[in-house]
Amino acid sequence: MFRTHIHPRFCDTDALGHIGNTVVPVWLLEGRESLLKLFAPDLDFRKASLVMVRTEIDFLGELRFGADVEVTTALEKIGNSSLVVLQEVHQDGEVRCKARTVMVNFNAQERSSQPIPDAVRSQLAEHLLAL
Amino acid sequence: MFRTHIHPRFCDTDALGHIGNTVVPVWLLEGRESLLKLFAPDLDFRKASLVMVRTEIDFLGELRFGADVEVTTALEKIGNSSLVVLQEVHQDGEVRCKARTVMVNFNAQERSSQPIPDAVRSQLAEHLLAL
Amino acid sequence: MFRTHIHPRFCDTDALGHIGNTVVPVWLLEGRESLLKLFAPDLDFRKASLVMVRTEIDFLGELRFGADVEVTTALEKIGNSSLVVLQEVHQDGEVRCKARTVMVNFNAQERSSQPIPDAVRSQLAEHLLAL
Amino acid sequence: MFRTHIHPRFCDTDALGHIGNTVVPVWLLEGRESLLKLFAPDLDFRKASLVMVRTEIDFLGELRFGADVEVTTALEKIGNSSLVVLQEVHQDGEVRCKARTVMVNFNAQERSSQPIPDAVRSQLAEHLLAL
Repeated sequence: MFRTHIHPRFCDTDALGHIGNTVVPVWLLEGRESLLKLFAPDLDFRKASLVMVRTEIDFLGELRFGADVEVTTALEKIGNSSLVVLQEVHQDGEVRCKARTVMVNFNAQERSSQPIPDAVRSQLAEHLLAL
Repeated sequence: MFRTHIHPRFCDTDALGHIGNTVVPVWLLEGRESLLKLFAPDLDFRKASLVMVRTEIDFLGELRFGADVEVTTALEKIGNSSLVVLQEVHQDGEVRCKARTVMVNFNAQERSSQPIPDAVRSQLAEHLLAL
Repeated sequence: MFRTHIHPRFCDTDALGHIGNTVVPVWLLEGRESLLKLFAPDLDFRKASLVMVRTEIDFLGELRFGADVEVTTALEKIGNSSLVVLQEVHQDGEVRCKARTVMVNFNAQERSSQPIPDAVRSQLAEHLLAL
Repeated sequence: MFRTHIHPRFCDTDALGHIGNTVVPVWLLEGRESLLKLFAPDLDFRKASLVMVRTEIDFLGELRFGADVEVTTALEKIGNSSLVVLQEVHQDGEVRCKARTVMVNFNAQERSSQPIPDAVRSQLAEHLLAL
């Protein structure tokens, strides 16, 4: 499981005084960055990157400015070319959001999905949740 | 059904050359603005606004800079205090994203949900899809 | 002079209830898009694009959610490889922001600036302000 | 001088492959957060906050995904109700941006500027640069 520490910004708030819902996908993206780097350790994303196929987010409680956030990121499933990623957003000791996201290994040069290489697969397996 | 015209911005692209997935929730938020205004026609959101409880987004095709987008917004269900919103993102004549979102009528002063008023409910009903 | 119509989004507000200052540069970027397209009419930005060298923004009045905005974009100066762009953000019949930005014609493949082609220069000249 | 550590996100990149210019004001806002908290230590921004009057940013070099950033924040001047803030964005051991920003102590309830209280002024003075 990856743990990502995030500092909410004042511009993440909206006129309701809390963190707006459009900010959460940005934090989840940052949480998945360690996964992305397994696919493209040299940060050359033309040959391998992760693109989003589906995401589901449950907003369980309000997020606020003034307290840091932790995003946890683990895997539910590793498919042939896809991953199912489970994430949680924690603040003030509570789970405030839960997300389940399907990502696909994407070749931007060919604009198509491609199998997950074995070397990446074995690294990913360390983050697979026992369900 | 509400139709919202959106112009992708250059800063909506990412290093993969397409529109990043974190932009889509922003467009969907803009698409729901007509719903929000039914709850708070005077734009005073302290007494009534819509907060997100759950969202599901399917990314069916790449979104690109250089062509405008249309977001369609309709209702699947109107509950006691909540709404189920169905949205699509169209570009180049194709459906590129589909979203299903649960929103709740929220009183920011009391930090709690509240029933949908009858006057709002009847306006919402005009946008209810026959499934 | 280019005129760009912009619709403020609810997520552009912050906890002070107005449009946050980080949103204005995004609107100014959208305002400069017509300039960008003169350099790269085919939207292939690898050979020609505009990168920012310096920007100055004066915030003259609060921007609010609930009223559309117009961004005007004109040129103060056309240099060898650079442009000086003057922009204003209008809302409720007032100028709320003024910006002066230096952009450079940039070749992303070579990671260097390059002269403005004559064909582009003559199109740009139509938007040059008489000062 | 305040030092703020920032982690660039993949969604901060644009189709040119580098960090887009609209991201820098967001990082500078995060850098000024320690100043903001001197004005509103309880995070109640209705009575005291900082609003932007003018900003000038020089972009000295490209910012990239894959290396963390440090934003330094200090004061050039403390006025009656305003501050002049000097900031730098560092990456890879270089100064990539410099910014000079005028902020005003703002009372959101009265929608007007207000003098900087003496207690805040003495704390601010510790971050004043000797020019």
